[in-house]
Amino acid sequence: MSMLKIATKRKTARKFKTAPINEDDIKYILETAIQAPSGSNTQPWRFIVVSDPDKKHRIREAAEKGEQAFYESISEERKKRYNAMGLSPAKPMLTEAPVLIVVLGDTTAPNYKPSVWVSIAYAILAVEERGLASVTYTPSDPVLVTEAVMAPDNFLVESILPLGYSDDPKKKADRKGLSELAFRDKWGVNFE
Amino acid sequence: MSMLKIATKRKTARKFKTAPINEDDIKYILETAIQAPSGSNTQPWRFIVVSDPDKKHRIREAAEKGEQAFYESISEERKKRYNAMGLSPAKPMLTEAPVLIVVLGDTTAPNYKPSVWVSIAYAILAVEERGLASVTYTPSDPVLVTEAVMAPDNFLVESILPLGYSDDPKKKADRKGLSELAFRDKWGVNFE
Repeated sequence: MSMLKIATKRKTARKFKTAPINEDDIKYILETAIQAPSGSNTQPWRFIVVSDPDKKHRIREAAEKGEQAFYESISEERKKRYNAMGLSPAKPMLTEAPVLIVVLGDTTAPNYKPSVWVSIAYAILAVEERGLASVTYTPSDPVLVTEAVMAPDNFLVESILPLGYSDDPKKKADRKGLSELAFRDKWGVNFE
Repeated sequence: MSMLKIATKRKTARKFKTAPINEDDIKYILETAIQAPSGSNTQPWRFIVVSDPDKKHRIREAAEKGEQAFYESISEERKKRYNAMGLSPAKPMLTEAPVLIVVLGDTTAPNYKPSVWVSIAYAILAVEERGLASVTYTPSDPVLVTEAVMAPDNFLVESILPLGYSDDPKKKADRKGLSELAFRDKWGVNFE
């Protein structure tokens, strides 16, 4: 399948079947992710593949604690917008998905975040190719989740990718066209 | 070609042939990039496709001004490490590559950076698939480059992707294995 086809087909899932997934698929996804480029080749990404129910539960609790504090901090308007999108502090996907890939960044590597996110993007395209689904969930309080997975001090959770077969009927959100997003030679001159 | 093959084959180029590239390829790369997921589907990415020599020159000047200031600010040790990797404040690739894709982020979208970098990752994999090459160059002073492309105040340059046929003989930098980068259920328990 072409890159454009995989990218177009790939959509976010927030509900997952509890069916287990293949070890081969997990390995394939990680092997793809670690091929990403990184500043000065620091490879500032680490992955914890979590399938143990107790550990998933602990991660979910830490994540939800952070989400609750976040929801209490935002405006009523923004809260309404999130509710309308079906978002809330509850993150059942973190225990329902058969596997979580917890992605951490090495905070001592200069400008590590872009590299980690390129690697996450490689991963989610490999997820799609393998017929699986995910969402790049970014905890509102990454420190709480980092503590829950007991990572060393210089690492910080960037994202959790719940991984499984999609049980999410939601269609892929519409994308704007290149006429809105791309310009030619200067801002304001439409690409097409 | 599988995702793993494209990801593995893809390597950074910092030297480019001056040969022009196909419009079709540019469009394909952008169409792939805009399929990326983004927080609340804000699609906080914009792309300026620059082929005009004067405009490339202006971008290079702005970028190099930022690099010079950065190099003056870092330790001698770090400077030596960069020199050993062939990095310097001079960025000839910004005028030599036939096309630059300037990628900007909408700074008003919450947590826009991860989304923009996922979209950049989609783009560079499409670049590889099309037989082209790129590097995710991040200007040390993005404000200078943002001014050079005259983007509105709420946008900031995240990266410039010089785009063309590779003229860079450098091999892909080695990657660590999953045994160093991935764990199972908890930090320190090797994935394999």
